[in-house]
Parts: sequence; structure tokens; C-alpha cells
Amino acid sequence: MTTTTQPKPPRSFASDNVTGVHPRIMQAMAEANRGAARPYGEDPWTARADELLRREFGQEIVPFFVFLGTAANVLSLSSMLRPHQAVLCADCAHICVDECGAPERFTGGKLLTVPSRDGKVAPEDFRRFLRDLGNQHHSQPAAVSITQCTEYGTIYTPDEIRALADFAHGNGLYLHMDGARLANACAALGCSLREITADCGVDALSFGGTKNGLMFGEAVIFFRPELARHFPWERKQAMQLYSKMRFIAAQFAAILEDGLWLRNAAHANRMAALLAEKAAAVPGVRLTRPVATNHVFATLPREAAERLMRDWHFYLWRDEPFEVRWMAAFDTEEADVLAFCADLARAVG
Amino acid sequence: MTTTTQPKPPRSFASDNVTGVHPRIMQAMAEANRGAARPYGEDPWTARADELLRREFGQEIVPFFVFLGTAANVLSLSSMLRPHQAVLCADCAHICVDECGAPERFTGGKLLTVPSRDGKVAPEDFRRFLRDLGNQHHSQPAAVSITQCTEYGTIYTPDEIRALADFAHGNGLYLHMDGARLANACAALGCSLREITADCGVDALSFGGTKNGLMFGEAVIFFRPELARHFPWERKQAMQLYSKMRFIAAQFAAILEDGLWLRNAAHANRMAALLAEKAAAVPGVRLTRPVATNHVFATLPREAAERLMRDWHFYLWRDEPFEVRWMAAFDTEEADVLAFCADLARAVG
Amino acid sequence: MTTTTQPKPPRSFASDNVTGVHPRIMQAMAEANRGAARPYGEDPWTARADELLRREFGQEIVPFFVFLGTAANVLSLSSMLRPHQAVLCADCAHICVDECGAPERFTGGKLLTVPSRDGKVAPEDFRRFLRDLGNQHHSQPAAVSITQCTEYGTIYTPDEIRALADFAHGNGLYLHMDGARLANACAALGCSLREITADCGVDALSFGGTKNGLMFGEAVIFFRPELARHFPWERKQAMQLYSKMRFIAAQFAAILEDGLWLRNAAHANRMAALLAEKAAAVPGVRLTRPVATNHVFATLPREAAERLMRDWHFYLWRDEPFEVRWMAAFDTEEADVLAFCADLARAVG
Amino acid sequence: MTTTTQPKPPRSFASDNVTGVHPRIMQAMAEANRGAARPYGEDPWTARADELLRREFGQEIVPFFVFLGTAANVLSLSSMLRPHQAVLCADCAHICVDECGAPERFTGGKLLTVPSRDGKVAPEDFRRFLRDLGNQHHSQPAAVSITQCTEYGTIYTPDEIRALADFAHGNGLYLHMDGARLANACAALGCSLREITADCGVDALSFGGTKNGLMFGEAVIFFRPELARHFPWERKQAMQLYSKMRFIAAQFAAILEDGLWLRNAAHANRMAALLAEKAAAVPGVRLTRPVATNHVFATLPREAAERLMRDWHFYLWRDEPFEVRWMAAFDTEEADVLAFCADLARAVG
Repeated sequence: MTTTTQPKPPRSFASDNVTGVHPRIMQAMAEANRGAARPYGEDPWTARADELLRREFGQEIVPFFVFLGTAANVLSLSSMLRPHQAVLCADCAHICVDECGAPERFTGGKLLTVPSRDGKVAPEDFRRFLRDLGNQHHSQPAAVSITQCTEYGTIYTPDEIRALADFAHGNGLYLHMDGARLANACAALGCSLREITADCGVDALSFGGTKNGLMFGEAVIFFRPELARHFPWERKQAMQLYSKMRFIAAQFAAILEDGLWLRNAAHANRMAALLAEKAAAVPGVRLTRPVATNHVFATLPREAAERLMRDWHFYLWRDEPFEVRWMAAFDTEEADVLAFCADLARAVG
Repeated sequence: MTTTTQPKPPRSFASDNVTGVHPRIMQAMAEANRGAARPYGEDPWTARADELLRREFGQEIVPFFVFLGTAANVLSLSSMLRPHQAVLCADCAHICVDECGAPERFTGGKLLTVPSRDGKVAPEDFRRFLRDLGNQHHSQPAAVSITQCTEYGTIYTPDEIRALADFAHGNGLYLHMDGARLANACAALGCSLREITADCGVDALSFGGTKNGLMFGEAVIFFRPELARHFPWERKQAMQLYSKMRFIAAQFAAILEDGLWLRNAAHANRMAALLAEKAAAVPGVRLTRPVATNHVFATLPREAAERLMRDWHFYLWRDEPFEVRWMAAFDTEEADVLAFCADLARAVG
Repeated sequence: MTTTTQPKPPRSFASDNVTGVHPRIMQAMAEANRGAARPYGEDPWTARADELLRREFGQEIVPFFVFLGTAANVLSLSSMLRPHQAVLCADCAHICVDECGAPERFTGGKLLTVPSRDGKVAPEDFRRFLRDLGNQHHSQPAAVSITQCTEYGTIYTPDEIRALADFAHGNGLYLHMDGARLANACAALGCSLREITADCGVDALSFGGTKNGLMFGEAVIFFRPELARHFPWERKQAMQLYSKMRFIAAQFAAILEDGLWLRNAAHANRMAALLAEKAAAVPGVRLTRPVATNHVFATLPREAAERLMRDWHFYLWRDEPFEVRWMAAFDTEEADVLAFCADLARAVG
Repeated sequence: MTTTTQPKPPRSFASDNVTGVHPRIMQAMAEANRGAARPYGEDPWTARADELLRREFGQEIVPFFVFLGTAANVLSLSSMLRPHQAVLCADCAHICVDECGAPERFTGGKLLTVPSRDGKVAPEDFRRFLRDLGNQHHSQPAAVSITQCTEYGTIYTPDEIRALADFAHGNGLYLHMDGARLANACAALGCSLREITADCGVDALSFGGTKNGLMFGEAVIFFRPELARHFPWERKQAMQLYSKMRFIAAQFAAILEDGLWLRNAAHANRMAALLAEKAAAVPGVRLTRPVATNHVFATLPREAAERLMRDWHFYLWRDEPFEVRWMAAFDTEEADVLAFCADLARAVG
């Protein structure tokens, strides 16, 4: 494929998964490409990545790698769930809305949903499902799943997570965290990975890499070893056991080694804050949600949005009321934000 | 991870999936890492890879990319199968033995197996299952699945595949080919990819990349468009829809562009032939299967095998009678083959 | 089991599934008990029941028998659904609330729910799900399922059902009707079984028997033959293929032969109307839903309800606001209704 | 349905599931038909049946009722199995051959089969599967399932079952017994239900009723309470939770109360022995399997078999070599056996 035939890459605030790969990650993959290695994770790169994950999350964790975020979520839940059981979650959760029923198909179980407040839920939202505990006609709640940061970019405080964990554990349930963008939450909260997971009572975590500069790869991290018992076989059945595992592990090692995970996320958050500030100053544009991480939700005249989409790639979030989503990523440049906001002002003006 | 702390890479004839990545593939991935791209396959690299697959397999194909071989197989079969139906295959088939029940779990269906001759099966092996057609107590045969080259490295001739396709189609079944190592079969047969698939009546193909020099990625290729109808959703549910799809596509484009796929496979076959020749000349070593591609099966005194395994990584295939497997790959060097055979002679001698 | 050791049967307005069996049905089963019969539905009783179902629903139907209502629902939906697809239904639907996730586990698919008005839904409720059609990230709507009469005893008019069918068919979806209590709806509407199903565009029906005087047995009725194609095997996999099928068929023949199905339902409806009238006249008792068939929902002081439950078996429906459900059945006697309402008045007074 | 329009019931040695219902059972069902009863097993008939099962099998059992044998098997196995696990069984096992893949679909797991000796297997048959224990690529053996009496009517001695249980337990597996015809085995062995199950180390049992004179109904009996933990919900998801449970329970109570289960089975065995003796005396007829219970397998000229099938209903078992199956049941009359053998002699002669 020659460079000349290739269209200009789109200028995009569509998602943090349309980006390329951070150069340090590419380099790590190239370095891992040295002859043969034992397959399926019995290689030194996987050992090193495990060690670094333990440094961040605690020595007692049991970590695994999979290809993508849906798999991390489905396999986390599958470790907690039998087919007659259910996961309690927000009705906007990625597991409910964006995974095409993969959790239900793989686990046989059910998702029981509640409306959220900008993506966030709290123990009282789920209390009504406790009434079904023990009733043989109803799917039995077995886990609570939350997303940090949420699908709307909002964040749970450590206290809020602890309250959800206490609720879950107090009723015999587990707490799962979809952390596809956990790094962005840490950057916003100024807390460590451990402080917002293990220390708050999270039982299993999907720890995202792809949206934070990796080419591919997510980690499933169990904070309770008993949940990991069947994982190797579940992963194989879920078509996620990678023979050349070192190429995921090398990426995680690179991003964890010296804090690149946090710098990438903090940068994306800063760019979103800048975008939000500049966009909010445009007459006719109004932010529709709190901006806490790398998501910006806004409303503007529909025709203006459509004009803007000729040059920029982003998503219409909702028709009524009309809402768009703009996302920043590890590689968003300040100049792009400024150019985008200038175009936005022109489109609306 | 510094080089000094890393153990010497194992010298391996274990499998063609313990290798690294071909340098041309690595380069293609690096080149694809240019800013944002539309996700989920709507990018120019995927368009180019599709075009090249069509050049090789025929314009009428419908191709898709997934992460790994088990997924390519499971999703191919899932497109052919309802849960009350069955796949007819050899009892040594990868789908039956090495996928931890993933085909059954994902499709709900059943595998009906027959013994093979060094991995190969023929229409007459499956005739007895036709008796169950229409009987509501029995899983209904819906597909035949074969592996080319087989799990023992043997190959089907075009005529043999055509006979299996005729049998399948004549009885209302589809023909699936697990082509994780299809390139090795083409190299051995001296035929094109199309001649051994579309031209022989194959309906769906798992076309392997990982074992032939890719970092990750396999293609599912449908020769009947109706089989592709539900694929996008099935792939998502199977946790195989990759946001940064260009990084699989770029690899396939690189390997298909100028015949690298064939050169890699032909090299692996040559190295296996050399290994077979040298090993067979060692007194006390006997080849146990025909060597047609990159697999060598042999028997030797068990203690000799165990001595040899101190320095070389390979698999014990069977206990009784005792049998080992040695595999060559795209990056096997002649010097390694000679060194290995010298060590083999010492171990046995 | 001697009569003396047996506790007095509970006096129950709990459900129409706590009843015994209508004497005519018992007699039909006894008459069917004559030596050997071909198993699995190849017997004359099944042929006769099929004939009678065709008389009621139309010659073009394809009917099948299963053991119970959950199975009739799950198998109806399974005929319409692939695992990546979804059923649109009310959030109070039996398939969603009372089947312990059986539809999801058996089909692999998803239920997408909307709030109902006393159990009823309309096309506009489901319109927002059409936005997901064609999007590979989202479960694809494939069917609408409604309950007639609903879980609250309310009924759809033929026009309302036709509108739902038009909506479904206009968007490539099927319409399923959970008719566990279809007979009660017919009795209330004064229409035939066909007028409220086939004539309104229903594609598959769960036609209830157990709640209308049968010992066990429900029918699945397909109004589109193509939906029946895989049913025999799906039924077997769903553990619903009954060897001594004549004993379900004989019950259906008996209830259809001369209109017993309608007399039973009409009686239950009348008894519920009487109960509603008498109960509503008790100060402190208020009906909370329209009474159209054999369900009565009411509110009263919680302590009064608890006092009443010492002598009568019925269900607390909801805690806040407090609500109870009383159901009449084919064998409810007027004297029981009157005695119950007298006790109710005492309990509240 | 009038008697005059009904065809003469077939004279049948086809199976013990083409029979009607024993009069004592019919009477018990009629007696259970007394007004309302608490649903789902909270009734006095279920309590009594449970008590009688405990008397036969031991006080520590946890029994449940389901509709049919396939469900009893699937739910027994489901209690022992996760989706990545496997059941070891004979390749002629009902769960493998005659349940249309229901075990795989419901559990997600796999059946690993071995050839049998007239339906029987032994620990050494399964030893090769132990090699896969702990390997993440292979389904993990979790249970052994045997059929008593077997699909060929042969029987395991208590010592043989104990050996299988020891093998299973010694390797971390459970032992399941498909006892659809357990009564016939007890009658042949002269042992109690407990002596051949609990006392031999069986962990879960499918205890058949339908083939021994019931209208419908089978019991699942757990000898290890921990296996029963999820059963109520699994049963509901398997569409086997019967609202009017008393009508299964009353049948089991009737057959257990005073030994009817054993008399029925012993009679069937005697009739099969008589048939075997008379048939073996016919020149041109040869018994092909040991006759231990109520099955008779034989070979005879194919044309003779086809002539005989004009008047008698039975199954062709196998084409090559040609083999037929004749089964006796609780209601087989000596006169029928003699008439059949006379017709057999004529057909062959």
C-alpha cells in the first residue's frame, strides 16, 4: 500500500479507539519480536507485565490478558455468574448496550438494569432487585457492574465505589468494574490504580489498554483468587487465548513501566477540558454533562453539527434531545482542539 | 525490560505459533500507525486487504478478520449451524480436540467425529451419520469440517476436497475448511489459494495468518454470501470485533501483496523436509507419519527425547506408542535444523 | 397417602395454576389410557387435537405440544431469533420477569423492554429500538412479544394487536403472543381464537392449557409455516418432546371439542368480576387496575391483608405502593368469592 | 373422540415408553385432583413422595421432580459441570445419541465418549482422558455418566459401579447414573434402589418413572447436597418447573408406596426373558446380546423382520450387521409374547 493512494486520515474526536498506537508501545512490540518464545503466556514478557500489574494493583491479584474490552467484561462477569444469575448495572452500561448481547450469550445470565445519573449508579438503585433473592422464578442477582470512568465520562469517588462494594458484599454479590478508561479516572481523581479498585472492594476489573494507546489488549484482574479458578478455560472457550501472548504483555509492560498509562490519560483529559472550555464559549453550543475526564457532550443546532461533520469525525449521541459526543485521546493535539473549536464556531455562527 | 535480565529465547521446534513476527509484517504495522482511522474495518487498510483476498480467492468472496484461529473456526461453523445441528469431522480435528469446547459452547451444536487416516477423512467415513437426517431425536448434520493441511501435516488433493464437497452438498451440508496452515498446503501442492478452496467447493474457510508470520489475525472467508449474513453480529458476540482493525488488515495486506504468504510457508516446508531427512538417518529414530508440509512426527527412545528436551522445546505427542512432534516455521534456520539433528543423534546414540 | 393425614386444601385466590384438573379433562386422560400408542405424537389423539386446533385457528397453522408455558414461550421465540437478536416486550412480561432467564439462556438472545400501561404496550413504545437496526454493536430486534390477556389481566383489542403486527412486519420483525390466558381474553372480548390471533397478524402463539383446567400441556402454534421448520429438534433440545404425547393431546382435544376452553375462561372472568365488585364495596379496599378478565388487583391496609392471608392463599404483588393480587379460575365457586369478601370486610373493618 | 373412529392400538414391542399408564397410577392422579394445592412442589403429595424417596434411597438425598428423562439427565449433568468441562460416557449413551445435543446446549460442555461392551464401560476406558486434566486447551473431565440398566439392557454389578465411582472420585470427578430403567436393573440384581446407587458411590441419579408405568415424570436425586444448590433455578431455566407438581408427585408416591415400581419392572424383565427364550428357539433367529432385563436384541433375515413389522411395532436397531430390538414393558402380556413369537416363527419359516 503506497502512501500516495491512501486518503488523508480523518481528523477525529469520535472516540479514543480510533487512534493509532503510542510510539513507545510500538517500540516495545518490536523489541519483543525476538525469535521463538513459549506460547500462551509462559514467556518473560508476560511475567514482567504480571509483575508490574502486581506493583500497581497489589501482590494478591491474579491477572490475565485478553484481546479486547468486550472480552474482558464478559470473562470478568462469567467468573462471577452462573446462567441463572444476573448482573445489576446501569442501563447505559457498555455491557448492556454496546456488546451485542455477548455477556448474555456467553454466560447464559441476565442483565438487570436501572437508569443512571450521567452514567453513575448507587446502591439504592439496586435495592429492589434484592426482593427476588431466593425466588426460583427469578434470575438471582450475583454481581454489580459499574464503569469507571462511566460511558458519560463521569467518575465515581472512592467513597462511592466503597459504598457499592459494601452493598454488593453485604448481599452476597460481587463487584465488577469495567475500567476500559480507568486510567482517565485515576488521572482525574489523582489517585493510584489500587486506591480506586482493590482498596475500594472491587472484586474483578477489566483494565483497558486499547483506548489508552495500545494496539490491542486488555487485562482482567481478579482481586479474589477464587474468581480466577476457571479463567484459563473460560478464556480459551471465549476465543481469547493468544498464542503469541508476549505481544500483549510487552505493551502492558511498556505502559506500566514508568507511568505512561497515567500520562496518556492525563493528556486526553486535559485536551477534553480545553475542548469543553472553548466549545462552551461558542454561542449556540451548550455542554450537556459534567466534563470530568476525556468525554465532552454538547448540544448545538443540528445543521451546525452536520456542517462540522464534513471535516471532523464524531458521533451524534442522541436525536431527542439532540446531543453530540466529542472525545479526546492520548494523541489529541492542542492545535487540533483549537482548529476544531474554530470550525465549530464557524459552523454554528 | 532489559536484555540482560531476559532468558535466552528457547530453541524451538514446538510449533509454528511460538515464533515472532516476520519483519515485513512488523514494518507494515508500523506504517499503519498514522493517526486516527475509522474503526471496526472502515479504514483503507481493511479495504486493501479485502481487495487482495479477492484477488487470491475470487471476487465473490465475503471476507472478515478475527483475532485468532479458534475464533475463525467457531465463527465459520456458527454461520452454518443451528444449535440442534452437528458438524462432521475427524476425531483429531483442532475444533474437536484443541478448542476446549468453544465450538459447542458458542453454537450450541455438536461435533460428530470419525477416526482419521493421519488426519484425513473421506466421504465414506461420514455416510453413517446420514441415517439420522430428519430424526428429531438426533442432532442433524449440517456441515463437514476438514483441516488443510491436517493436524498431522498431511494434505488433501484438490480431487479429495472436491469429493468431500460433493458429498456435503449432495446431502444438504456445507463444507468448512480449517486453513490455519493452508499456505503450507498450497506450497506443497503447488496450487493457488483459490484452486484448493473455491474451485473445490469449499463454502467457508478459516485462513490462517498467525502461524505464518503474522503477529495476530486470521481471516474468515465465505464463498457463499448467504453464510455471511449474520457474521458482523456473530463476530461481535464472539468478542472478535476489533476497533483498530487496520492492524490486522495491514498484516494481511503485507503478506498477500507480493506472495510473502507462500514464501514463508514454502520455507517452513523445506526446513521440515530437511529435518525429516536428517532425523530419519539417525539410528533409533523413525518417522511415524508422511511428511508433506511443516510437521515431522517421529518415535525414538523416550529417554533420548527427554535428554533432547533439555535444550530444545518441542512436544511429546503421544505416550503409547511413544511419539514426538517437531515443527518448522517461516523463521526456522537451516543451521538450527542441523544443530538440532546433531543433538538428536547425540541424545539417541 | 391416606385422606386423614392430608391437610385441608388451601382456599386460594393465588393463581389459576394452583387449581386441579377439570373432570372432563381427567376423564379424557383416562380414556386415552388404552394400551400402547405410537410415541412422540404419531398417535390418533394428537391427530385429533391437531385437527381441532386447525378448526379453531385456521387450516394453515402448524401446532406442537409442550409441557408448560415457559417452554411454549421460549420455543416460540427461539423459532424467531438468532443469538444476536432481541425480543421487544413489556418490562412486566412473563418472559422477562418470571422465567428465570430461560429465554436468554436457550436462545442466546436479549430482551429489550419498555414500561407498560397495566401490562399493555403499543408500537410507539418500541420505535426507539429501530435506530439500532443494522448496527453491529447492538442486538438486532427480531420479534415483538405481547401477552394476551396481560400479566395484569388487561386485554388488547383486535385493532391494537393488528397495529403491533403491522409495526412488527413493517420493520422485518415477527409478532409473538404469550397466550397462557388467551381463553380469558377471548371470553372477555367475545371473539374467536382465530379473530384475535391469525386474523390480527400474530406469527406464533403460546396457547395455554394448564391455567384453564388442564393437568399439564401447552400448545405452540405457528401461523407461518417457515417458523416451524426447526421446531421438532428445538423442542427435543428444550427437553419438551414427550414420549406419551397422547396424554397432552387428549386434554387439548377434550377442551376444544365442544367449547369447554371458553366456558372455563368465561366462568373465571365472571368470578373475578364478582370478586372485584364485592371487594370494591368494602371501605378501605380500592381496586388498582381495570378488571377485564380473571385478575383483580387491589390495595388495602397491609395488616388487613396479612390477617386475611391466615385463611386464604393469595399473593402480595408489590410493597410500595402496597398492592395484592387475587385471581379466579375455572373452578372458583361463587360461595368462595362471597366467603372471601366477607372475610375481607372483617379483616379490614 | 369416540371409540369407534379410533384405530386398533398397535401391538408393540417397540419400547417401554409406548405404553399407557398403570391403573394404580391413574387412580393416584385422580385422587390428587382435589381442589387447589400450593404450586411448585409445596403441596402434601410432593412431601409424601419425597419421604418415600428418602425411605428408598436414604435420608440424606435431595430429590426433585422433572417432566422427562432427557431433562433429568441434562439437569443432573448441569449440576456437575461448567461449560468448559466434560462428561465421560459410552458412545451409545442416551445423553450422547438420543438427546439431540440437549446436554451440550444446556450446559455448554462436552461429552467425551468411548466404545462400550454391550453398553457397559469401565474405569480403564476413561483413563486416557485424565491426561488432559489441567490443560487449558482441552475440556476438563468433570463427571462420568453411566446408564443402569444400559441402553442394551445389560447391567452393572454393584462392584462395577463402585469401581467407577472410585475412579471418578479419585480423580476429582462426579458419578452420574442415568436410571431411566433403574427399576429393571434392581429387579434383575435382586438389590434395593439404595444398594445400587448411594451405597456404590453414585453422586446424582436420574430415576425413571415414565418407562415403568407413569404417565410422565422423572426424579433427579442428589446424593451430595452441594450438587443441589443451584437446582431450583436450573430446573426453571430448563423449563421443568411444574406448577401443578402434585400430579408428578402423586404418581411417584403411588409407585413407591408398596413396591409397585419393582413389580412392574420384574414383570417386564420376565416377559423379555420369555420372549428371548421363545425367539431363540426359532431357527433363523439369533440373540445378539445378553438378555438381562427387558431388552431383547436379535438378528434374523431382513425380509422376515419386515414381514413381522406389518403386524407388530418394533425398531430396526442397526443395518449392518442387521439387528432388531424388542422390548417388554410393565403391561406386556404373556399371550402377546406367545403370539408374537408364533408370528415370528411364521415370518422366518
